[in-house]
Amino acid sequence: ADLAAGKAKAAVCAACHGANGIAQIPTYPNLAGQNEQYLVLALKAYKNKQRTGGQAVIMQGQAAALSDEDIANLAAYWSSLPAGGGK
Amino acid sequence: ADLAAGKAKAAVCAACHGANGIAQIPTYPNLAGQNEQYLVLALKAYKNKQRTGGQAVIMQGQAAALSDEDIANLAAYWSSLPAGGGK
Repeated sequence: ADLAAGKAKAAVCAACHGANGIAQIPTYPNLAGQNEQYLVLALKAYKNKQRTGGQAVIMQGQAAALSDEDIANLAAYWSSLPAGGGK
Repeated sequence: ADLAAGKAKAAVCAACHGANGIAQIPTYPNLAGQNEQYLVLALKAYKNKQRTGGQAVIMQGQAAALSDEDIANLAAYWSSLPAGGGK
C-alpha cells in the first residue's frame, strides 16, 4: 500500500472522520490506528452495500468511487495514524 | 450506561477484540476508545442484520443476544478504555 497516495485521498474522509482520524461526529467511528485489514474489509462492505441502515448510505456512496488500490492505500494511511489522535 | 455491567458482559467480546480492546485478529476492529455512540449503532446494525458478508454473521449472532441496555453498557465500557490499548 502507498501511504502517500492514501493521504492524498484521505481529505474526503477527514471531513467527517477528522484529519487526525478522530471523528468530528460522535456517531461516526474514529479511524486513527484502526487495524488496516479491518478498514479494507469495512470499506469493501460499504462498497458492496453489505452495510445498510442508518448513515451507511453515506459510506456506500463514498466507497463506490474507490478502487481496490484506493481502499488499500486509505486503510494503510488511517491505520498508520496514532490511536487516540496523537494525544 | 453502567460501566461495571458493561465490563461484566465484555468478556465475550474480549475473546476476539482483546481484553484491552485491541483486536487479537487483524481483520477485526479495535474497540478501545472508539466513539460510544458509534459502537451502539454498529451493534444495533449487526443485531438488525444490516451488516452482512464476510465475518458479519459472527457479530449478528453475538448481537442477537444483547438487549438495548446491554448494548449501551458495552459501548460505554469499550469506549472508556484508552485508545491504542493503553500503550
